[in-house]
Amino acid sequence: MTYELYYWPGIQGRGEFIRLALEQAGADYVDVARVRSVSALTQGLKDADAQRPPFAPPFLKDGETVVAQTAAILLYLGRRLDLAPRDEAGELWTHQIQLTLSDIVNEAHDTHHPVGVGLYYEDQKVEALRRAQEFRRERMPKYFRWLERVLGDSPAEGWLVGDAVTYADLSAFQVVEGLRYAFPNAAAAALDAAPKLAGLAARVRALPNIAAYLASERRIAFNRDGIFRYYPELDEPAGNEG
Amino acid sequence: MTYELYYWPGIQGRGEFIRLALEQAGADYVDVARVRSVSALTQGLKDADAQRPPFAPPFLKDGETVVAQTAAILLYLGRRLDLAPRDEAGELWTHQIQLTLSDIVNEAHDTHHPVGVGLYYEDQKVEALRRAQEFRRERMPKYFRWLERVLGDSPAEGWLVGDAVTYADLSAFQVVEGLRYAFPNAAAAALDAAPKLAGLAARVRALPNIAAYLASERRIAFNRDGIFRYYPELDEPAGNEG
Repeated sequence: MTYELYYWPGIQGRGEFIRLALEQAGADYVDVARVRSVSALTQGLKDADAQRPPFAPPFLKDGETVVAQTAAILLYLGRRLDLAPRDEAGELWTHQIQLTLSDIVNEAHDTHHPVGVGLYYEDQKVEALRRAQEFRRERMPKYFRWLERVLGDSPAEGWLVGDAVTYADLSAFQVVEGLRYAFPNAAAAALDAAPKLAGLAARVRALPNIAAYLASERRIAFNRDGIFRYYPELDEPAGNEG
Repeated sequence: MTYELYYWPGIQGRGEFIRLALEQAGADYVDVARVRSVSALTQGLKDADAQRPPFAPPFLKDGETVVAQTAAILLYLGRRLDLAPRDEAGELWTHQIQLTLSDIVNEAHDTHHPVGVGLYYEDQKVEALRRAQEFRRERMPKYFRWLERVLGDSPAEGWLVGDAVTYADLSAFQVVEGLRYAFPNAAAAALDAAPKLAGLAARVRALPNIAAYLASERRIAFNRDGIFRYYPELDEPAGNEG
Protein backbone atom coordinates (compact mmCIF):
# COMPACT_ATOMS: atom_id res chain seq x y z
CA MET A 1 0.00 0.00 0.00
CA THR A 2 1.32 3.44 -0.93
CA TYR A 3 1.12 6.07 1.81
CA GLU A 4 -0.28 9.39 0.67
CA LEU A 5 1.11 12.46 2.42
CA TYR A 6 -0.95 15.64 2.12
CA TYR A 7 0.98 18.81 2.84
CA TRP A 8 1.79 22.18 1.32
CA PRO A 9 4.20 21.69 -1.57
CA GLY A 10 6.45 24.75 -1.19
CA ILE A 11 7.69 24.36 2.35
CA GLN A 12 9.22 21.86 4.72
CA GLY A 13 6.86 22.91 7.49
CA ARG A 14 5.30 20.35 9.77
CA GLY A 15 5.05 17.92 6.86
CA GLU A 16 8.81 17.54 6.88
CA PHE A 17 8.68 15.48 10.07
CA ILE A 18 6.51 12.99 8.20
CA ARG A 19 8.69 13.07 5.09
CA LEU A 20 11.78 12.27 7.15
CA ALA A 21 10.11 9.25 8.75
CA LEU A 22 8.90 7.91 5.42
CA GLU A 23 12.30 8.48 3.81
CA GLN A 24 14.30 6.89 6.62
CA ALA A 25 12.10 3.79 6.44
CA GLY A 26 12.29 3.63 2.66
CA ALA A 27 8.50 3.60 2.62
CA ASP A 28 6.45 3.69 -0.55
CA TYR A 29 4.76 7.10 -0.46
CA VAL A 30 3.57 9.92 -2.63
CA ASP A 31 3.78 13.59 -1.62
CA VAL A 32 0.37 14.34 -3.08
CA ALA A 33 0.40 18.11 -3.47
CA ARG A 34 3.86 18.06 -5.02
CA VAL A 35 3.44 15.09 -7.32
CA ARG A 36 -0.23 15.51 -8.25
CA SER A 37 -1.76 18.87 -7.43
CA VAL A 38 -2.43 21.29 -4.62
CA SER A 39 -6.14 20.98 -5.29
CA ALA A 40 -5.90 17.34 -4.20
CA LEU A 41 -4.74 18.69 -0.86
CA THR A 42 -7.42 21.34 -0.46
CA GLN A 43 -10.03 18.88 -1.65
CA GLY A 44 -8.90 16.46 1.02
CA LEU A 45 -9.53 19.13 3.64
CA LYS A 46 -13.00 19.91 2.33
CA ASP A 47 -14.14 16.36 1.66
CA ALA A 48 -17.69 16.43 2.97
CA ASP A 49 -17.81 12.66 3.26
CA ALA A 50 -14.80 12.46 5.53
CA GLN A 51 -15.73 10.67 8.71
CA ARG A 52 -12.62 11.83 10.49
CA PRO A 53 -11.81 15.17 8.87
CA PRO A 54 -8.36 16.70 9.32
CA PHE A 55 -8.34 20.21 10.79
CA ALA A 56 -5.23 21.14 8.81
CA PRO A 57 -2.31 19.62 6.89
CA PRO A 58 -0.31 17.52 7.25
CA PHE A 59 -2.49 14.46 7.01
CA LEU A 60 -1.73 10.95 5.86
CA LYS A 61 -3.88 8.50 3.98
CA ASP A 62 -3.15 4.80 4.34
CA GLY A 63 -5.87 3.14 2.35
CA GLU A 64 -9.12 4.03 4.08
CA THR A 65 -7.38 5.39 7.15
CA VAL A 66 -6.83 9.14 7.44
CA VAL A 67 -4.65 10.53 10.21
CA ALA A 68 -3.90 14.19 10.89
CA GLN A 69 -1.75 16.03 13.44
CA THR A 70 1.99 15.56 13.00
CA ALA A 71 2.57 13.76 16.28
CA ALA A 72 -0.38 11.43 15.75
CA ILE A 73 0.82 10.58 12.24
CA LEU A 74 4.24 9.71 13.63
CA LEU A 75 2.67 7.59 16.35
CA TYR A 76 0.83 5.72 13.61
CA LEU A 77 3.85 5.39 11.33
CA GLY A 78 6.26 4.57 14.13
CA ARG A 79 4.55 1.23 14.64
CA ARG A 80 4.44 0.39 10.97
CA LEU A 81 7.87 1.62 9.92
CA ASP A 82 9.78 0.30 12.92
CA LEU A 83 10.65 3.83 14.02
CA ALA A 84 9.56 3.45 17.63
CA PRO A 85 9.91 0.81 20.34
CA ARG A 86 7.18 -1.82 20.41
CA ASP A 87 6.59 -1.78 24.14
CA GLU A 88 3.97 0.67 25.39
CA ALA A 89 6.27 2.62 27.71
CA GLY A 90 8.90 3.07 25.01
CA GLU A 91 6.35 4.04 22.40
CA LEU A 92 4.80 6.60 24.72
CA TRP A 93 8.18 8.06 25.67
CA THR A 94 9.07 8.49 22.01
CA HIS A 95 5.74 10.22 21.50
CA GLN A 96 6.34 12.44 24.52
CA ILE A 97 9.65 13.60 23.08
CA GLN A 98 7.91 14.31 19.78
CA LEU A 99 5.25 16.42 21.51
CA THR A 100 7.96 18.43 23.23
CA LEU A 101 9.70 18.94 19.88
CA SER A 102 6.33 20.11 18.53
CA ASP A 103 6.27 22.72 21.28
CA ILE A 104 9.67 24.01 20.14
CA VAL A 105 8.36 24.18 16.57
CA ASN A 106 5.33 26.20 17.68
CA GLU A 107 7.51 28.61 19.61
CA ALA A 108 9.96 28.95 16.72
CA HIS A 109 7.04 29.78 14.43
CA ASP A 110 5.74 32.40 16.82
CA THR A 111 9.05 34.28 16.80
CA HIS A 112 8.17 35.63 13.35
CA HIS A 113 4.39 35.57 13.81
CA PRO A 114 3.74 36.63 17.40
CA VAL A 115 0.63 38.68 16.67
CA GLY A 116 -1.21 36.69 14.08
CA VAL A 117 -0.85 33.89 11.58
CA GLY A 118 -2.94 35.88 9.11
CA LEU A 119 -0.62 38.90 9.10
CA TYR A 120 2.61 39.47 7.21
CA TYR A 121 5.88 39.41 9.10
CA GLU A 122 6.45 43.03 8.19
CA ASP A 123 3.28 43.97 10.07
CA GLN A 124 4.50 42.42 13.32
CA LYS A 125 8.23 42.97 13.08
CA VAL A 126 8.52 45.02 16.26
CA GLU A 127 6.73 42.32 18.25
CA ALA A 128 8.82 39.66 16.53
CA LEU A 129 12.02 41.31 17.70
CA ARG A 130 10.82 41.07 21.30
CA ARG A 131 9.53 37.53 21.04
CA ALA A 132 12.64 36.26 19.25
CA GLN A 133 14.84 37.63 22.00
CA GLU A 134 13.12 35.53 24.63
CA PHE A 135 13.21 32.50 22.35
CA ARG A 136 16.96 32.86 21.71
CA ARG A 137 17.92 33.61 25.30
CA GLU A 138 15.56 31.43 27.30
CA ARG A 139 13.46 28.96 25.39
CA MET A 140 15.81 27.39 22.85
CA PRO A 141 18.60 26.85 25.44
CA LYS A 142 16.06 25.37 27.88
CA TYR A 143 14.76 22.88 25.32
CA PHE A 144 18.29 21.99 24.28
CA ARG A 145 19.27 21.37 27.91
CA TRP A 146 16.35 18.98 28.24
CA LEU A 147 17.29 17.09 25.08
CA GLU A 148 20.88 16.95 26.28
CA ARG A 149 19.67 15.50 29.55
CA VAL A 150 17.61 12.89 27.71
CA LEU A 151 20.72 11.96 25.73
CA GLY A 152 22.76 11.94 28.90
CA ASP A 153 22.11 8.31 29.67
CA SER A 154 22.64 7.15 26.10
CA PRO A 155 25.93 5.72 24.92
CA ALA A 156 28.17 8.20 23.09
CA GLU A 157 26.82 7.16 19.72
CA GLY A 158 23.33 6.61 21.02
CA TRP A 159 19.85 7.75 20.14
CA LEU A 160 17.15 9.50 22.13
CA VAL A 161 15.25 6.27 22.83
CA GLY A 162 17.05 2.99 23.36
CA ASP A 163 19.61 1.73 20.88
CA ALA A 164 17.81 2.26 17.59
CA VAL A 165 16.77 5.28 15.53
CA THR A 166 13.24 6.49 16.19
CA TYR A 167 11.17 9.22 14.61
CA ALA A 168 12.08 11.36 17.64
CA ASP A 169 15.70 11.38 16.45
CA LEU A 170 14.68 12.41 12.96
CA SER A 171 12.50 15.18 14.39
CA ALA A 172 15.24 16.40 16.71
CA PHE A 173 17.53 16.62 13.68
CA GLN A 174 14.90 18.64 11.81
CA VAL A 175 14.44 21.03 14.73
CA VAL A 176 18.21 21.53 15.00
CA GLU A 177 18.47 22.12 11.24
CA GLY A 178 15.58 24.56 11.29
CA LEU A 179 16.94 26.53 14.21
CA ARG A 180 20.38 26.66 12.61
CA TYR A 181 18.78 28.13 9.51
CA ALA A 182 16.57 30.62 11.36
CA PHE A 183 19.00 31.64 14.12
CA PRO A 184 22.51 30.80 12.89
CA ASN A 185 24.27 32.68 15.68
CA ALA A 186 21.98 31.82 18.54
CA ALA A 187 21.60 28.18 17.56
CA ALA A 188 25.36 27.74 17.23
CA ALA A 189 25.83 29.13 20.72
CA ALA A 190 23.07 26.95 22.14
CA LEU A 191 24.47 23.86 20.44
CA ASP A 192 27.94 24.56 21.83
CA ALA A 193 26.31 23.94 25.20
CA ALA A 194 24.55 20.81 23.91
CA PRO A 195 27.25 18.70 22.26
CA LYS A 196 25.32 15.44 22.50
CA LEU A 197 22.39 16.96 20.64
CA ALA A 198 24.73 18.35 18.00
CA GLY A 199 26.25 14.89 17.65
CA LEU A 200 22.83 13.30 17.31
CA ALA A 201 21.89 15.70 14.54
CA ALA A 202 25.12 14.88 12.72
CA ARG A 203 24.47 11.14 12.99
CA VAL A 204 20.93 11.52 11.64
CA ARG A 205 22.26 13.58 8.74
CA ALA A 206 24.68 10.75 7.91
CA LEU A 207 22.09 7.97 7.87
CA PRO A 208 22.22 6.64 4.29
CA ASN A 209 18.52 7.11 3.54
CA ILE A 210 18.44 10.56 5.12
CA ALA A 211 21.63 11.65 3.37
CA ALA A 212 20.18 10.51 0.04
CA TYR A 213 16.94 12.35 0.73
CA LEU A 214 18.68 15.57 1.73
CA ALA A 215 20.70 15.45 -1.51
CA SER A 216 17.60 14.86 -3.61
CA GLU A 217 15.13 17.28 -5.15
CA ARG A 218 12.52 15.92 -2.78
CA ARG A 219 14.07 17.96 0.03
CA ILE A 220 12.67 21.48 -0.22
CA ALA A 221 15.10 24.20 0.83
CA PHE A 222 14.34 26.23 3.95
CA ASN A 223 12.64 29.47 2.97
CA ARG A 224 10.66 32.39 4.34
CA ASP A 225 7.29 30.72 3.84
CA GLY A 226 7.99 27.90 6.27
CA ILE A 227 8.00 27.54 10.03
CA PHE A 228 11.71 28.23 10.41
CA ARG A 229 12.54 31.57 8.78
CA TYR A 230 15.78 33.47 8.61
CA TYR A 231 15.44 37.15 9.34
CA PRO A 232 18.88 38.47 10.34
CA GLU A 233 17.36 41.01 12.72
CA LEU A 234 15.80 38.19 14.78
CA ASP A 235 19.20 36.55 15.30
CA GLU A 236 21.63 38.72 17.18
CA PRO A 237 25.32 38.27 16.43
CA ALA A 238 27.21 36.00 18.78
CA GLY A 239 28.45 37.74 21.88
CA ASN A 240 25.72 40.35 21.72
CA GLU A 241 23.41 38.60 24.12
CA GLY A 242 23.33 39.19 27.79
CA MET B 1 -2.39 1.91 42.54
CA THR B 2 -2.92 5.63 43.19
CA TYR B 3 -2.16 7.92 40.26
CA GLU B 4 -0.03 10.93 41.14
CA LEU B 5 -0.73 14.09 39.15
CA TYR B 6 1.98 16.74 39.22
CA TYR B 7 0.79 20.19 38.24
CA TRP B 8 0.75 23.78 39.51
CA PRO B 9 -1.67 24.06 42.40
CA GLY B 10 -3.22 27.49 41.78
CA ILE B 11 -4.54 27.12 38.24
CA GLN B 12 -6.60 24.84 36.07
CA GLY B 13 -4.10 25.14 33.23
CA ARG B 14 -3.14 22.11 31.18
CA GLY B 15 -3.41 19.93 34.26
CA GLU B 16 -7.18 20.38 34.23
CA PHE B 17 -7.52 18.10 31.22
CA ILE B 18 -5.94 15.35 33.29
CA ARG B 19 -8.01 16.14 36.37
CA LEU B 20 -11.23 15.88 34.36
CA ALA B 21 -10.28 12.47 33.01
CA LEU B 22 -9.36 11.15 36.44
CA GLU B 23 -12.55 12.57 37.97
CA GLN B 24 -14.87 11.25 35.28
CA ALA B 25 -13.40 7.78 35.71
CA GLY B 26 -13.58 7.94 39.49
CA ALA B 27 -9.89 7.09 39.56
CA ASP B 28 -7.87 6.96 42.72
CA TYR B 29 -5.46 9.89 42.40
CA VAL B 30 -3.65 12.56 44.35
CA ASP B 31 -3.04 16.08 43.06
CA VAL B 32 0.45 16.17 44.51
CA ALA B 33 1.26 19.87 44.60
CA ARG B 34 -2.12 20.71 46.13
CA VAL B 35 -2.34 17.89 48.65
CA ARG B 36 1.32 17.54 49.57
CA SER B 37 3.57 20.43 48.50
CA VAL B 38 4.74 22.43 45.53
CA SER B 39 8.28 21.35 46.25
CA ALA B 40 7.24 17.78 45.45
CA LEU B 41 6.38 19.09 41.98
CA THR B 42 9.57 21.05 41.42
CA GLN B 43 11.59 18.16 42.83
CA GLY B 44 9.93 15.86 40.33
CA LEU B 45 11.12 18.13 37.51
CA LYS B 46 14.69 18.22 38.79
CA ASP B 47 15.02 14.57 39.76
CA ALA B 48 18.48 13.76 38.49
CA ASP B 49 17.79 10.04 38.45
CA ALA B 50 14.77 10.35 36.19
CA GLN B 51 15.24 8.15 33.17
CA ARG B 52 12.44 9.83 31.27
CA PRO B 53 12.41 13.38 32.63
CA PRO B 54 9.37 15.60 32.02
CA PHE B 55 10.12 18.89 30.30
CA ALA B 56 7.31 20.64 32.17
CA PRO B 57 4.15 19.95 34.18
CA PRO B 58 1.71 18.32 33.96
CA PHE B 59 3.17 14.88 34.46
CA LEU B 60 1.68 11.73 35.86
CA LYS B 61 3.25 9.00 37.95
CA ASP B 62 1.73 5.56 37.86
CA GLY B 63 4.02 3.46 40.01
CA GLU B 64 7.36 3.50 38.23
CA THR B 65 5.95 4.97 35.05
CA VAL B 66 6.24 8.72 34.48
CA VAL B 67 4.39 10.34 31.58
CA ALA B 68 4.46 14.02 30.62
CA GLN B 69 2.75 16.08 27.90
CA THR B 70 -1.00 16.49 28.35
CA ALA B 71 -1.99 14.62 25.22
CA ALA B 72 0.38 11.73 25.95
CA ILE B 73 -0.95 11.45 29.50
CA LEU B 74 -4.49 11.24 28.16
CA LEU B 75 -3.45 8.63 25.62
CA TYR B 76 -2.03 6.61 28.52
CA LEU B 77 -5.05 7.12 30.78
CA GLY B 78 -7.62 6.64 28.03
CA ARG B 79 -6.67 2.99 27.80
CA ARG B 80 -6.73 2.42 31.52
CA LEU B 81 -9.79 4.45 32.46
CA ASP B 82 -11.96 3.36 29.54
CA LEU B 83 -12.04 6.90 28.17
CA ALA B 84 -11.10 6.02 24.59
CA PRO B 85 -12.03 3.32 22.10
CA ARG B 86 -9.96 0.17 22.27
CA ASP B 87 -9.39 -0.22 18.53
CA GLU B 88 -6.31 1.48 17.13
CA ALA B 89 -8.14 3.72 14.66
CA GLY B 90 -10.59 4.95 17.27
CA GLU B 91 -7.87 5.51 19.83
CA LEU B 92 -5.81 7.49 17.33
CA TRP B 93 -8.79 9.60 16.23
CA THR B 94 -9.55 10.47 19.85
CA HIS B 95 -5.91 11.47 20.26
CA GLN B 96 -6.02 13.52 17.07
CA ILE B 97 -8.99 15.50 18.39
CA GLN B 98 -7.09 16.06 21.65
CA LEU B 99 -4.06 17.37 19.78
CA THR B 100 -6.27 19.81 17.89
CA LEU B 101 -7.83 20.95 21.17
CA SER B 102 -4.27 21.44 22.46
CA ASP B 103 -3.66 23.76 19.51
CA ILE B 104 -6.67 25.86 20.52
CA VAL B 105 -5.34 25.99 24.06
CA ASN B 106 -1.95 27.20 22.84
CA GLU B 107 -3.56 29.89 20.72
CA ALA B 108 -5.85 30.98 23.55
CA HIS B 109 -2.79 31.31 25.79
CA ASP B 110 -0.97 33.39 23.22
CA THR B 111 -3.78 35.96 23.08
CA HIS B 112 -2.60 37.34 26.41
CA HIS B 113 1.06 36.41 26.00
CA PRO B 114 1.91 37.02 22.36
CA VAL B 115 5.39 38.38 22.93
CA GLY B 116 6.79 36.27 25.70
CA VAL B 117 5.85 33.80 28.39
CA GLY B 118 8.34 35.46 30.72
CA LEU B 119 6.75 38.91 30.47
CA TYR B 120 3.73 40.33 32.27
CA TYR B 121 0.51 40.84 30.38
CA GLU B 122 0.76 44.57 31.00
CA ASP B 123 4.03 44.64 29.08
CA GLN B 124 2.48 43.13 25.96
CA LYS B 125 -1.02 44.52 26.12
CA VAL B 126 -0.89 46.32 22.78
CA GLU B 127 0.23 43.15 21.02
CA ALA B 128 -2.37 41.15 22.93
CA LEU B 129 -5.14 43.37 21.59
CA ARG B 130 -4.05 42.60 18.05
CA ARG B 131 -3.58 38.90 18.59
CA ALA B 132 -6.87 38.49 20.44
CA GLN B 133 -8.75 40.10 17.57
CA GLU B 134 -7.56 37.46 15.13
CA PHE B 135 -8.29 34.73 17.63
CA ARG B 136 -11.85 35.94 18.21
CA ARG B 137 -12.66 36.61 14.57
CA GLU B 138 -10.85 33.82 12.76
CA ARG B 139 -9.34 31.11 14.87
CA MET B 140 -11.96 30.29 17.51
CA PRO B 141 -14.81 30.16 14.94
CA LYS B 142 -12.68 27.99 12.65
CA TYR B 143 -11.92 25.48 15.40
CA PHE B 144 -15.58 25.46 16.47
CA ARG B 145 -16.70 24.80 12.88
CA TRP B 146 -14.38 21.82 12.77
CA LEU B 147 -15.68 20.41 16.06
CA GLU B 148 -19.24 21.00 14.84
CA ARG B 149 -18.39 19.06 11.70
CA VAL B 150 -16.94 16.20 13.75
CA LEU B 151 -20.16 16.14 15.77
CA GLY B 152 -22.21 16.31 12.60
CA ASP B 153 -22.34 12.58 12.12
CA SER B 154 -23.10 11.83 15.74
CA PRO B 155 -26.63 11.28 17.02
CA ALA B 156 -28.21 14.35 18.62
CA GLU B 157 -27.12 13.29 22.08
CA GLY B 158 -23.85 11.88 20.85
CA TRP B 159 -20.20 12.27 21.68
CA LEU B 160 -17.20 13.22 19.59
CA VAL B 161 -16.05 9.63 19.14
CA GLY B 162 -18.53 6.78 18.87
CA ASP B 163 -21.29 6.33 21.40
CA ALA B 164 -19.39 6.69 24.68
CA VAL B 165 -17.71 9.54 26.49
CA THR B 166 -13.99 9.89 25.78
CA TYR B 167 -11.37 12.23 27.16
CA ALA B 168 -11.82 14.26 23.97
CA ASP B 169 -15.34 15.19 25.11
CA LEU B 170 -14.06 16.22 28.52
CA SER B 171 -11.34 18.32 26.90
CA ALA B 172 -13.77 19.95 24.48
CA PHE B 173 -15.93 20.90 27.46
CA GLN B 174 -12.91 22.41 29.19
CA VAL B 175 -11.96 24.41 26.10
CA VAL B 176 -15.52 25.73 25.76
CA GLU B 177 -15.62 26.64 29.46
CA GLY B 178 -12.26 28.37 29.25
CA LEU B 179 -13.17 30.36 26.18
CA ARG B 180 -16.48 31.38 27.74
CA TYR B 181 -14.57 32.70 30.73
CA ALA B 182 -11.89 34.48 28.70
CA PHE B 183 -14.06 35.78 25.87
CA PRO B 184 -17.67 35.86 27.13
CA ASN B 185 -19.00 37.85 24.18
CA ALA B 186 -16.96 36.29 21.41
CA ALA B 187 -17.38 32.73 22.68
CA ALA B 188 -21.15 33.16 23.00
CA ALA B 189 -21.34 34.35 19.41
CA ALA B 190 -19.12 31.51 18.18
CA LEU B 191 -21.16 28.95 20.11
CA ASP B 192 -24.40 30.28 18.63
CA ALA B 193 -22.98 29.07 15.34
CA ALA B 194 -21.91 25.74 16.87
CA PRO B 195 -25.02 24.41 18.67
CA LYS B 196 -23.85 20.79 18.70
CA LEU B 197 -20.64 21.76 20.45
CA ALA B 198 -22.59 23.83 22.96
CA GLY B 199 -24.84 20.82 23.56
CA LEU B 200 -21.86 18.55 24.04
CA ALA B 201 -20.38 20.89 26.63
CA ALA B 202 -23.70 20.93 28.50
CA ARG B 203 -23.89 17.14 28.51
CA VAL B 204 -20.34 16.83 29.85
CA ARG B 205 -21.16 19.36 32.58
CA ALA B 206 -24.14 17.21 33.60
CA LEU B 207 -22.22 13.94 33.88
CA PRO B 208 -22.61 12.95 37.54
CA ASN B 209 -18.91 12.64 38.30
CA ILE B 210 -18.08 15.85 36.44
CA ALA B 211 -20.94 17.75 38.10
CA ALA B 212 -19.75 16.58 41.51
CA TYR B 213 -16.18 17.59 40.70
CA LEU B 214 -17.18 21.05 39.45
CA ALA B 215 -19.14 21.63 42.67
CA SER B 216 -16.25 20.51 44.85
CA GLU B 217 -13.29 22.42 46.22
CA ARG B 218 -11.06 20.35 43.98
CA ARG B 219 -12.14 22.47 41.01
CA ILE B 220 -10.00 25.60 41.00
CA ALA B 221 -11.77 28.71 39.72
CA PHE B 222 -10.61 30.28 36.46
CA ASN B 223 -8.22 33.13 37.22
CA ARG B 224 -5.67 35.43 35.65
CA ASP B 225 -2.75 33.10 36.29
CA GLY B 226 -4.08 30.34 34.07
CA ILE B 227 -4.20 29.69 30.35
CA PHE B 228 -7.67 31.15 29.89
CA ARG B 229 -7.73 34.72 31.26
CA TYR B 230 -10.45 37.28 31.23
CA TYR B 231 -9.32 40.74 30.23
CA PRO B 232 -12.39 42.70 29.11
CA GLU B 233 -10.39 44.65 26.55
CA LEU B 234 -9.48 41.42 24.74
CA ASP B 235 -13.15 40.51 24.30
CA GLU B 236 -15.06 43.03 22.24
CA PRO B 237 -18.77 43.47 22.96
CA ALA B 238 -21.13 41.49 20.76
CA GLY B 239 -21.93 43.23 17.51
CA ASN B 240 -18.70 45.18 17.54
CA GLU B 241 -16.81 42.83 15.30
CA GLY B 242 -16.68 43.23 11.58
